[in-house]
Amino acid sequence: MYPASDAQDNARPFLTWQRIIDWAQEHYRCRTFNKDEKIPARPGLLYLVQRGSVRLVGTAQVNANATSRVARIAPEEAFLGFVGAGQPFEIVAQSPFTLQSYAHVDQTSVVWMYWNDLDNWPHFRREVLDAFRYQHQRKLLWLSTLGQRRTIDRLLGFLTLLIEEYGEPTEDGYCLPFPLTHAQIGSAIGSTRVTVTRLMGKLRQKGLIRTQGDNLLCLPAEIIEKRRNSAPEVGGEADSNVIANAS
Amino acid sequence: MYPASDAQDNARPFLTWQRIIDWAQEHYRCRTFNKDEKIPARPGLLYLVQRGSVRLVGTAQVNANATSRVARIAPEEAFLGFVGAGQPFEIVAQSPFTLQSYAHVDQTSVVWMYWNDLDNWPHFRREVLDAFRYQHQRKLLWLSTLGQRRTIDRLLGFLTLLIEEYGEPTEDGYCLPFPLTHAQIGSAIGSTRVTVTRLMGKLRQKGLIRTQGDNLLCLPAEIIEKRRNSAPEVGGEADSNVIANAS
Repeated sequence: MYPASDAQDNARPFLTWQRIIDWAQEHYRCRTFNKDEKIPARPGLLYLVQRGSVRLVGTAQVNANATSRVARIAPEEAFLGFVGAGQPFEIVAQSPFTLQSYAHVDQTSVVWMYWNDLDNWPHFRREVLDAFRYQHQRKLLWLSTLGQRRTIDRLLGFLTLLIEEYGEPTEDGYCLPFPLTHAQIGSAIGSTRVTVTRLMGKLRQKGLIRTQGDNLLCLPAEIIEKRRNSAPEVGGEADSNVIANAS
Repeated sequence: MYPASDAQDNARPFLTWQRIIDWAQEHYRCRTFNKDEKIPARPGLLYLVQRGSVRLVGTAQVNANATSRVARIAPEEAFLGFVGAGQPFEIVAQSPFTLQSYAHVDQTSVVWMYWNDLDNWPHFRREVLDAFRYQHQRKLLWLSTLGQRRTIDRLLGFLTLLIEEYGEPTEDGYCLPFPLTHAQIGSAIGSTRVTVTRLMGKLRQKGLIRTQGDNLLCLPAEIIEKRRNSAPEVGGEADSNVIANAS
């Protein structure tokens, strides 16, 4: 699932992961979802993606014109990123914001547990926390690009971060292994479906992005490699794949 | 420093924190900065704010019109949030993004260490990781509001999150204890100083925000309390103040 996963295979605490999957199945703490099905996650619990990919979505009900009827009927949903196989996630709710999770692809399996359950696996708890630390680092980069004033720069920065993290090497460069709609992209960068479609056309014309087959987003390999060579990796011990990558 | 800090005083591992401060002073791993002075932090190390407040800033050099001279001369800086006393931070660098840290107020003291140094304090390591987990939760809420299409909604959502986390109770409601410029706010929400100034006027007219004395931002107490009562706190064990709040 990750470009760099081969190098990290040896570091996987595979035995612990397998034991956790076994434990989850024994205790009915495991469930499989279809594409776009809502995962009924709630705050305070810990979720692990066993297979597939989860899409996190945030809803903001902050509205400066709270009297407008439209706003009350349709709160805006923002795409907040993917959680891939082997990665943990949790749901936060703090009025006026709520998070939701959806299976992004068919056959997405999720395991859940209480934080106390991790007392049985202290080493694994640390891996979970390291994974959240890594996710936090990625979100800081994401926020850096969302601070850019021009929508086309936010769009290119967002796509770059997403494909760097989740892309797979193909003939066309690095490609997301699943589609993402223009509306979803717009919801992440504070723009609209229509604007995203227009700006994606521009980026394609300039050769900065590509699309493959069934609308899969790609970055030319040269661009990713140039970036990798010109700066250190995301800092410290936190690692894109600290938790076992089940599949 | 935090509205809820009293309730959490008992939970502070004060002895560990004091021991770490002593250790840092013994090993010359502690330094004090003036307002807006750059903290020469680098990736791979762990930093703890002992006193004052740190401002994180991200720079994105993604640019869809890479040939324009203006863009190359002045990369855009985005305000990514504060790190308060007792909280950890780290710097991430992944081309084309870099993070920087600045003292946001005078007399800001920062302690640094290698992750390996935490082997001496395994309990403290877990608190550091829990603090990053909490910061990640806050950033997900932040991203939820930045996905909103209308700049005024992003602005109000951003100010709400910031003041909820760092505000102090006063007669005017909850107020940030230090100023934040309109340019800094604009850089966080993908807008400009001019637009922020105009929209802040609108929000003030509607009574949704206030300003106090020397340009300190406030939210009316009723708004914060209404929000607190209408939803659960940020999920799980992660806590706004898991690490000792030094002062």
